[in-house]
Amino acid sequence: MASLVAVGTVAFDSIETPFAKMDHVIGGAATYITLCASHFVKESGLVSVVGDDFPQSMLDEMTKRGIDQGGLQIKQGEKSFYWSGKYHYDMNSRDTLVTDLNVLATFDPVIPEAYKNCDFLMLGNLAPAVQMRVIEQLNERPKLVVMDTMNFWMDIAWDDLMQVIAKVDVLTINDEEARQMAKEHSLVKAAKKILELGPKYLIIKKGEHGALLFDKTNVFFAPALPLEEVVDPTGAGDTFAGGFIGYLAQTENISFENMKRAIIVGSAMASFTCEKFGPDRLLEITKEEIHERIEQFVQLTEFEIELV
Amino acid sequence: MASLVAVGTVAFDSIETPFAKMDHVIGGAATYITLCASHFVKESGLVSVVGDDFPQSMLDEMTKRGIDQGGLQIKQGEKSFYWSGKYHYDMNSRDTLVTDLNVLATFDPVIPEAYKNCDFLMLGNLAPAVQMRVIEQLNERPKLVVMDTMNFWMDIAWDDLMQVIAKVDVLTINDEEARQMAKEHSLVKAAKKILELGPKYLIIKKGEHGALLFDKTNVFFAPALPLEEVVDPTGAGDTFAGGFIGYLAQTENISFENMKRAIIVGSAMASFTCEKFGPDRLLEITKEEIHERIEQFVQLTEFEIELV
Repeated sequence: MASLVAVGTVAFDSIETPFAKMDHVIGGAATYITLCASHFVKESGLVSVVGDDFPQSMLDEMTKRGIDQGGLQIKQGEKSFYWSGKYHYDMNSRDTLVTDLNVLATFDPVIPEAYKNCDFLMLGNLAPAVQMRVIEQLNERPKLVVMDTMNFWMDIAWDDLMQVIAKVDVLTINDEEARQMAKEHSLVKAAKKILELGPKYLIIKKGEHGALLFDKTNVFFAPALPLEEVVDPTGAGDTFAGGFIGYLAQTENISFENMKRAIIVGSAMASFTCEKFGPDRLLEITKEEIHERIEQFVQLTEFEIELV
Repeated sequence: MASLVAVGTVAFDSIETPFAKMDHVIGGAATYITLCASHFVKESGLVSVVGDDFPQSMLDEMTKRGIDQGGLQIKQGEKSFYWSGKYHYDMNSRDTLVTDLNVLATFDPVIPEAYKNCDFLMLGNLAPAVQMRVIEQLNERPKLVVMDTMNFWMDIAWDDLMQVIAKVDVLTINDEEARQMAKEHSLVKAAKKILELGPKYLIIKKGEHGALLFDKTNVFFAPALPLEEVVDPTGAGDTFAGGFIGYLAQTENISFENMKRAIIVGSAMASFTCEKFGPDRLLEITKEEIHERIEQFVQLTEFEIELV
């Protein structure tokens, strides 16, 4: 049984930054999530869909990393999901240029038997109705369901979104999306409202400005690592999610204290993804590099103060 | 002898936020700096200039708090510096509506004898030539000189600015100013360049996104406290500076480790200033409230991680 199951896109991205341009690099939320999580768990299950254009070499690489593809549909004669975007000079915001749904337009997730008792479920950004179809097929509620979403679904599928949100434990969205969802500018007030919609925990991602974890009584902040050079932030949020749930699954501990650690791990992993186009860094990094990177977060944030 | 001397404006501000409007509240960099620092040091010296319109009651309040006014010029028949600004909806950026220099137009700082051997000097945001006039009048170099500045001086007084920067230990600027000064988008690269201009330490203030402390080999990050409501951020940066240098003066320790603590203290104090218009909160808060606020920063950022 795959104890961690991730649902989301497996896709191609064309990315333009102020400094470079890359066509058709491998992307997709579930790609980043599973590749990142594979540094923490030996096995995971992937639920997604691709066309026959997706490279077998990447699928083989995933298999080597314990990412089971029993939930991956390969549609012959069809094309994989394709997204193209252009980053602004600040590298923290971007415009979407092209979204070709392709295989995603008719995606109906089929959960293999072996995934139906998973302990950890990561719902990557997808239509809320599709996320719901995944939850419905499980035999029992996982120990932890983490869900990512975006403003697009708030605009066109609000009711579906509210239904899924009510069923998850952790919601991850960015700061603008949190403000939009709660209709509140203050993130503290927005977090309170969102936590009333169902999730026990809310992670607000602020890109280069770090991430906040809220539950009803606590708040924790993790900075993003100040990087000398951000080559391409695409997939950083999904990598963050993969590191977060991967660490929780590895340590089998879903306390607030352990979620704090998981957020640091997610932030550390996301910083690697920013260093190259596509998921390449996630394929290269070693355990030692991950440990060093996490140690940098300790150094970055640690202080001791005695009050007199 | 005043061991901490602060130079900067003492002024009136008219402030418009998306939620409220206040006319002619007491403001000025040195006002916030000294009032904030008075929570940490028993005595300080104020170098500034006001017209005869500045309320004696606030000067009396300062005296009660050990803020000596031997360096404060009061110009009869003239008006105090006046600034008016309007905050955007995000409360993190603003437009200046009015700047009436008034007494500031001819300000020539005169340093009293009793200040000339100060240990800690805070150069609040002012024309670099005026900041330099202060440094020149000292008998000996202070243990620590902290300098604040802004983009305006980069635009119109670059050479003067470079001369002062070469003489200070700590420079505090915001993220956009750091980018402008270094002509580098990456804050890490910008910090490296700026540290080559003279300062041993650089603090990059990111408003609601916290602050970064750099020296040539280390970096430390302190978040801003996520506030339920930001009423008015005016003076938050100066309060931060006052808390930073006030804590360093109180503890008489200018190591990087202690600067980390000082940045947390500055961030905690700045969070109070955001809660009301003008410096009112700085006049109300107790030692207990300050300690509680600092403890909130510990809670917000503390994690322990063991890597396996």
